[in-house]
Amino acid sequence: MASSQPVPKTCKVILADTIAKGLLAEVQDTLKTVQQDTTNRPTLVAFLANDDPAAVKYAEWSQKTCEENGFHFELRQVDKDALEEEIMTANDDDKVDGILVYYPIFPGNPAHDRYIQETVSLSKDVEGLCHKHISNMYYNVRFLDPPHNQKKSILPCTPLAVVKILEYLQIYNSILPYGNRLFGKTITVINRSEVNGRPLAALLANDGATVYSVDLTGVQVFTRGQGIKQLRHQVQEKEGWGLEQCVPISDVIIGGVPTEKYKVPTELIRDGAVCINFSSFKNFDGPAIKEKASIYVPSVGKVTIAVLLRNLVRLIANSPSTKPDGSADESLAKAKSEAFVDG
Amino acid sequence: MASSQPVPKTCKVILADTIAKGLLAEVQDTLKTVQQDTTNRPTLVAFLANDDPAAVKYAEWSQKTCEENGFHFELRQVDKDALEEEIMTANDDDKVDGILVYYPIFPGNPAHDRYIQETVSLSKDVEGLCHKHISNMYYNVRFLDPPHNQKKSILPCTPLAVVKILEYLQIYNSILPYGNRLFGKTITVINRSEVNGRPLAALLANDGATVYSVDLTGVQVFTRGQGIKQLRHQVQEKEGWGLEQCVPISDVIIGGVPTEKYKVPTELIRDGAVCINFSSFKNFDGPAIKEKASIYVPSVGKVTIAVLLRNLVRLIANSPSTKPDGSADESLAKAKSEAFVDG
Repeated sequence: MASSQPVPKTCKVILADTIAKGLLAEVQDTLKTVQQDTTNRPTLVAFLANDDPAAVKYAEWSQKTCEENGFHFELRQVDKDALEEEIMTANDDDKVDGILVYYPIFPGNPAHDRYIQETVSLSKDVEGLCHKHISNMYYNVRFLDPPHNQKKSILPCTPLAVVKILEYLQIYNSILPYGNRLFGKTITVINRSEVNGRPLAALLANDGATVYSVDLTGVQVFTRGQGIKQLRHQVQEKEGWGLEQCVPISDVIIGGVPTEKYKVPTELIRDGAVCINFSSFKNFDGPAIKEKASIYVPSVGKVTIAVLLRNLVRLIANSPSTKPDGSADESLAKAKSEAFVDG
Repeated sequence: MASSQPVPKTCKVILADTIAKGLLAEVQDTLKTVQQDTTNRPTLVAFLANDDPAAVKYAEWSQKTCEENGFHFELRQVDKDALEEEIMTANDDDKVDGILVYYPIFPGNPAHDRYIQETVSLSKDVEGLCHKHISNMYYNVRFLDPPHNQKKSILPCTPLAVVKILEYLQIYNSILPYGNRLFGKTITVINRSEVNGRPLAALLANDGATVYSVDLTGVQVFTRGQGIKQLRHQVQEKEGWGLEQCVPISDVIIGGVPTEKYKVPTELIRDGAVCINFSSFKNFDGPAIKEKASIYVPSVGKVTIAVLLRNLVRLIANSPSTKPDGSADESLAKAKSEAFVDG
């Protein structure tokens, strides 16, 4: 009897493109509700001051996606030493809605890159890398203007892309209250860079997950504590822990190791886990992972670009009303707020 | 900054009534598409041959729900020894669409109860207790008439109610293919009765979960094997295991122990687990469980009655066309099939 049924495929591979399309449609809808002059295309200026081929490729994809979605994308190739002044010029230019910089600029000097990140005006920081945006993210503060809560804080693109993917995959449980939708989920994030892995672990823990953050120095656990009673995540070192301890107990494994030869050991992954790769290299062993995972997302790049445009529309929504008397336009502010109920 | 945000409630309590309402609306819609004579109210006959107060209460609820939803409910109180003949009379009565019996009838003699269950005609077995229905359930065969697959097999009401609850709670992940939507989930079911706990463990494992089935004799694990490659579940004894081993690793804990004093040890339950009670007694410690669980469903009775009516509509859909020549009505059969794509 049972033999008349086909053997179902057990791993569902979800491509970033599928998820990006939904987000881009949402971006279009939101843009219509917040844009005051619909004849002006929103403008994103991107600064390329290194010769990283990955950055060039990302710029090309960004340009294509922008043009397809009615945004204006302008790539400015500048010398490292002129970058700061070029950013300041763009900060002061009313025609520029968002500013993007391809990092690293000064590979041996992360503090110098941090300095450049802070040069970008908060109101044009489409990547969410200014201190105020980063601080809000870590403190789980979602607005720039409490207690009015009309201006949403901007989250970094790749970590937010992974959040949007987890929402699409229904790992976020919409039965639970907003802000707690990962309660009960255990997630391992492999990579703890300041740009991607650490903010991602913080975002997921702020939404209620128990997150094991793994890098070469060891494992840290990010949680909101017993019963997620805390309003923001806390971090604890897990002495003596490695992938062997945290991967087998994780519902979701997220790889972000930026090297070609690194692979998450498939044998540690539990049957039916959800696996997501945000590295530009394949962190999971392609054929083998499909025998283990219930869902596998091999890359996130296209979702990251969709989130970049989503952030750009947020910056436009956050910008002050252009009414001559400069007063707050309450109805517009309300429309802005309602357009952005989620993360 | 963070202190301006209210502390969110961390446990979402979901009442059976909420879930039942959705199912009853669906039952109404389906009834319209399958019923040929809409002036006839479908008739459910229930036999009460014991004096169990829980059965009387369940009968009252069933009556109320039937009347509210346009079904005719007829309670027949009969002597134990007359029950078999009374059931045979109802089997032969065209006005009766479904037959329900309140068990146990012969408490010390489960084989006699099994005999009574088999007395009910397969075409009126609204509880899914006939051997063919039970066998299909265990073998993960979802139709009575393969390879035509027009007549859905009937599943027992309480186990199916728990499945419907898990779908509502989004524990079933609709991103995954139908039939595999619990892949990656670990579930403990406490109770392994033939009527409830064992069929439930089988249903959940057939849908892809790893299910620990616990009773006084020990723990068994029900799974479709590594990578859910098998078409139906297999059962293995877990020697030396108890609640201490399986509860802490479970995403979902389902209690069904029919005694007042039994409580699942709260300290074994992991932070953020989903807890469901299908016993008529509270198997979870009310206040404490809300400090641990992400979702808590304190009872399932109303969902069970909704599923009973859903099964009754299935029986009506499965019944042969009343066309004079007795030939199959292809378009009706197609409508029936499309009306029942899910479990």
